[in-house]
Amino acid sequence: MASHAKTLQSSYPWTTSPLITSAPMRLIAGEALTLSVSRSHGLGFLAIGTDLASLALLKTITTSLHENPIPNTPPGILPIGVGFICFGIDLAAAVSTISSAPQKPAAAWLFAPREENDLIAWSSGIRDASAGKTAIWIQIGTVASALQVARTCRPDVLVIQGSDAGGHGLAHSSSLISLLPECADALSKAGFGHIPLIAAGGIADGRGVASASMLGAAGICMGTRFLCSPEAAISDGYRGAVLRAGDGGVSTARTKLYDRLRGTTGWPEQYDGRAVLNHSFWDHEKGVAEEENRRLYGESVKLGDEGWGEKARMTTYAGTGVGLINKIMPAGEIVKEVSRDAKTLLKRGASHL
Amino acid sequence: MASHAKTLQSSYPWTTSPLITSAPMRLIAGEALTLSVSRSHGLGFLAIGTDLASLALLKTITTSLHENPIPNTPPGILPIGVGFICFGIDLAAAVSTISSAPQKPAAAWLFAPREENDLIAWSSGIRDASAGKTAIWIQIGTVASALQVARTCRPDVLVIQGSDAGGHGLAHSSSLISLLPECADALSKAGFGHIPLIAAGGIADGRGVASASMLGAAGICMGTRFLCSPEAAISDGYRGAVLRAGDGGVSTARTKLYDRLRGTTGWPEQYDGRAVLNHSFWDHEKGVAEEENRRLYGESVKLGDEGWGEKARMTTYAGTGVGLINKIMPAGEIVKEVSRDAKTLLKRGASHL
Repeated sequence: MASHAKTLQSSYPWTTSPLITSAPMRLIAGEALTLSVSRSHGLGFLAIGTDLASLALLKTITTSLHENPIPNTPPGILPIGVGFICFGIDLAAAVSTISSAPQKPAAAWLFAPREENDLIAWSSGIRDASAGKTAIWIQIGTVASALQVARTCRPDVLVIQGSDAGGHGLAHSSSLISLLPECADALSKAGFGHIPLIAAGGIADGRGVASASMLGAAGICMGTRFLCSPEAAISDGYRGAVLRAGDGGVSTARTKLYDRLRGTTGWPEQYDGRAVLNHSFWDHEKGVAEEENRRLYGESVKLGDEGWGEKARMTTYAGTGVGLINKIMPAGEIVKEVSRDAKTLLKRGASHL
Repeated sequence: MASHAKTLQSSYPWTTSPLITSAPMRLIAGEALTLSVSRSHGLGFLAIGTDLASLALLKTITTSLHENPIPNTPPGILPIGVGFICFGIDLAAAVSTISSAPQKPAAAWLFAPREENDLIAWSSGIRDASAGKTAIWIQIGTVASALQVARTCRPDVLVIQGSDAGGHGLAHSSSLISLLPECADALSKAGFGHIPLIAAGGIADGRGVASASMLGAAGICMGTRFLCSPEAAISDGYRGAVLRAGDGGVSTARTKLYDRLRGTTGWPEQYDGRAVLNHSFWDHEKGVAEEENRRLYGESVKLGDEGWGEKARMTTYAGTGVGLINKIMPAGEIVKEVSRDAKTLLKRGASHL
């Protein structure tokens, strides 16, 4: 673990340890969130998601970083990551954009390929296009995938996603508390113990970070917590719904319903999404026909922020950490607070026993 | 947290911190497991479950402890706990047994009442019967229940059960990583910050214990790990199935199927159980009729240990930690190893950052 933390810090020398990253949340993690996190000694991930047009943001970010650089950025590197939802986006176009960029993103986060072996072409494509400057991060949710991907793609980092995570993830998985150490053991036994692990799913504050560190993580990723930063590109209605939700195991659940209602298609069968429950879900449970539920959803969309109000129906992807979040805070402040609190807990260590 | 660890050690002075407990697993946690854990500086819980006859074991245990006492046991106290599944057992009979016992169990673990408010009578009944010597431990799985029970029952300890736990628990919940800190915050805000929290669900080794400690737990409970001790009263077939299972988020799942197949009835609607998946489950998924599946289950029962073999069908309740367990070890050794490993990790604390 000691060497893992050092590996990450030497790869991303503007960051502090344990590494705090922001998830490449599709449609949500844009320039503002990404740069705020990286400017506060974290690693922000820009969501390319399934939309190649988002790659244009690399230019804007390059300009912004040229005008106001982040100290300790290695030459030729953009001190941010980019996140791809592999099943839904063209590898060749992604590769060509990275290839033509004067500076390369420090990391590419790969998630949800149509077939696991598609990650082989993604990994080598991005490595070639960036002359090895863009590190390959792969997100998985089972021990079998961790091993398979380690063997076939030799990733620089593995992101281990547990069942508490918001938005898309495996419908059938365990939480970090057993998944992370089991992955660590299996990887180590198979000769991949050098790969740093990033913990994702249910972490929303310094306690979660310190906890993940004890499980063997060299860093962590948060999504839901950053939804409650002004930099997240979501409406105030969505943000408010996340803030109001508490008792995260009860107020959220994993389901495919919201993708169906809002017409998000193409996710491989094994994925669903964790969301804050609302009338769309409860009506579904009551047996309201899907067509009618979709119509009501459409009505709700027209309401704007009110679509997440008292009679909320709109998709509110978020993790079980919702109840740990009780205020809106700038993303950079979140990174600093969480990092400081985690270090305090880890330094205290065993002194209270 | 500091004061919580001290509270537990002053209440159970034969134990070390963080407190390691064994779950009162119905039909599984008998005299051997309970005493082995308590004799190794942990707190073993005897499963009374739903069977009052199990209370007779208190006499056997009293005799055993008289012959071979555990040092630092307070006078009039049995250095073990007893666990009740409240919906299925008669409070008056439980109270009368405890009342007539010359020495009182150090703790009573209450779980799964028919109605949450039934815990009020249980708490006061056991407190009265033991002249306050038996501490009240209540297991919950949501923040709302933690608050409600704290207000109505003033428990001495709350056991916080996350979604990774094996056997019965809430069908709809989050894992410890967000549930434990959210409970801690809510309890603290409501004036119940003095109640020590025990983390349960997915913990199988020292990393899980250290992790739970960072989340705010004063101690932990393991069930699945102890299934792989010779002291657990299960057949070798069951034990072998737990040992063989890996990738715990994939090889186990929460379901009500196994209760139906083996004829376990009466659990309130909100509970299901996490088990190692086998042919019973896969046939159910394939659409095999329940009657036929039950018949096949019955055939399997006749096979004994082979009922958990290659064509396994029998109920194998276990948590997502199955993949962290790779050998059978005496229960006392488990307590010592887990405790030692947790302390090493906690002492190292932030030194690797």
